Amino acid sequence: MERTDIAIVGGGAAGLTAAIYAARERLAAVLIDDYPGGQILQAALVDNYPGLPEISGEELGEAFRQHAQDKGAVFLESTVAHIKRENDIFVLTLDDGVQTSELRARSVIYAAGCRHRLLGVEGEARLTGHGVSYCASCDAAFYPQKTVAVVGGGNTALGDALLLSRIAETVYLIHRRDTFRASAALVEAVKQTDNIQLILHTVPLEICGEKAVTGIRLRNQNDQTQQLLQIDGVFAAVGMQPDTAMVSDFVRCDETGYVIAGEDGITSCPGLFAAGDIRTKQLRQVITAAADGANCVRSAEHYLRTRKG
Amino acid sequence: MERTDIAIVGGGAAGLTAAIYAARERLAAVLIDDYPGGQILQAALVDNYPGLPEISGEELGEAFRQHAQDKGAVFLESTVAHIKRENDIFVLTLDDGVQTSELRARSVIYAAGCRHRLLGVEGEARLTGHGVSYCASCDAAFYPQKTVAVVGGGNTALGDALLLSRIAETVYLIHRRDTFRASAALVEAVKQTDNIQLILHTVPLEICGEKAVTGIRLRNQNDQTQQLLQIDGVFAAVGMQPDTAMVSDFVRCDETGYVIAGEDGITSCPGLFAAGDIRTKQLRQVITAAADGANCVRSAEHYLRTRKG
Repeated sequence: MERTDIAIVGGGAAGLTAAIYAARERLAAVLIDDYPGGQILQAALVDNYPGLPEISGEELGEAFRQHAQDKGAVFLESTVAHIKRENDIFVLTLDDGVQTSELRARSVIYAAGCRHRLLGVEGEARLTGHGVSYCASCDAAFYPQKTVAVVGGGNTALGDALLLSRIAETVYLIHRRDTFRASAALVEAVKQTDNIQLILHTVPLEICGEKAVTGIRLRNQNDQTQQLLQIDGVFAAVGMQPDTAMVSDFVRCDETGYVIAGEDGITSCPGLFAAGDIRTKQLRQVITAAADGANCVRSAEHYLRTRKG
Repeated sequence: MERTDIAIVGGGAAGLTAAIYAARERLAAVLIDDYPGGQILQAALVDNYPGLPEISGEELGEAFRQHAQDKGAVFLESTVAHIKRENDIFVLTLDDGVQTSELRARSVIYAAGCRHRLLGVEGEARLTGHGVSYCASCDAAFYPQKTVAVVGGGNTALGDALLLSRIAETVYLIHRRDTFRASAALVEAVKQTDNIQLILHTVPLEICGEKAVTGIRLRNQNDQTQQLLQIDGVFAAVGMQPDTAMVSDFVRCDETGYVIAGEDGITSCPGLFAAGDIRTKQLRQVITAAADGANCVRSAEHYLRTRKG
């Protein structure tokens, strides 16, 4: 069974920054991810990572990965299936798709990120990959001159609508309220885009279609009227869900599932540090995730130095 | 008198990131600095800002500044001489070297950074700029084939010693303890460098020379013996001092002078947010300063939205 001082779970901005810092500090660390780069790989354009304006998410994720690799970071291309604690040691069960193995680690930097939240309507599961998408930058290219709907009211939803407006013929933006959580700049841009049509006070009830999406049934929250919209695809952008099931047995999480941790990443479980979108914080961005990675290495280093084992 | 919603005081990584985020959010913000870029401009090589490996500090600072400028950030090339609070408004007195002016701001993101700590020995003030330096990457080039001393035991001191070892003939590294706070990688590199000589358990007593540095008088802390070392230059790298005199009247600081604030930048003074090296935090790095800038914009935006005025 392999051993390491620090197991970094997740290869997004937080995990890769942790790998860079750990490698530079000559700490024994292993980063586990089946495809390092993280959520950012799905972003068409990132324009708020200071110093690298207007870069594609794929390029940015790759720049992080390459930086870590050049510093000598050790990668394990695998998925963490399970984590358990045995006294002061964490035992990680890894699954690389072919076989499982175990990795023992004196500490864990948990940077598993978030998953996309589901709409929770009929037809969604059945038609996922057949017209239901959670990633506009991944799938928008499949809808040239088509009619699509985006569901949501945050930065992701409005950014998705703008991206789709350049490819599809018509974009419906469906939002349950009449105001958006998204930034003023995005709201302004959406309102100035001719082929984006706002459908407010409205929630989806069902995604229709047999083998592929053909429509979406909606309900207006004010007057309860329903309508069936003919569309070719629907993009769900209704938020993220932290990936904490694996640790929630032994780490305190808040009511929405995020690991409770401050900027130093220290959690209720000694030796396990939380970095990036997974932890309680006010602003989930590449830059704040990366800072978390650096901070968690400092915290882990201090933990390892002050514990025997 | 000019008015703004957010005055960003200081143009280092924290202030420039705040400017990027504020501009992208279409918030009324002004960044005040006589030469934006910050401390990082003085670093010969930065290798731990994720995604931009092995970049000079000057290039990195310029990349941040350019990014902010391209997003439409407003810069005032000036120095903040004084800040006072009048009810809920901050009144900043600016001095651009020719004249003073006033800027009224509904909120302040205070990102003034830190200054170099002095050695506090005789001759230091008199010979600063004549052989006494606080910035190896700025001044090392003046010492080809010379003999220099570096005072300190942290990452900066050891990094300075390595940089100087490539230019000067002999580098003395003077440290009051026998262990270093610097990272293991740096300590290893220093120990493997032939022309760096360690002088441990030793403190400087006096920097000697009339018009330029000719030597440094040292005392061994174990046996109290003194020695006079012939040197051509001395680089002080004994830490940083937060630049908080301007706000310490109305903002709570800790015993070492840092503004007390968490990752959201919220201080004891409503409307004033602290970002970067100036605030209490475990890890002062470009990446953590940049994250602070983003977080403070979020905090300021929320503050402005929920206050009238």
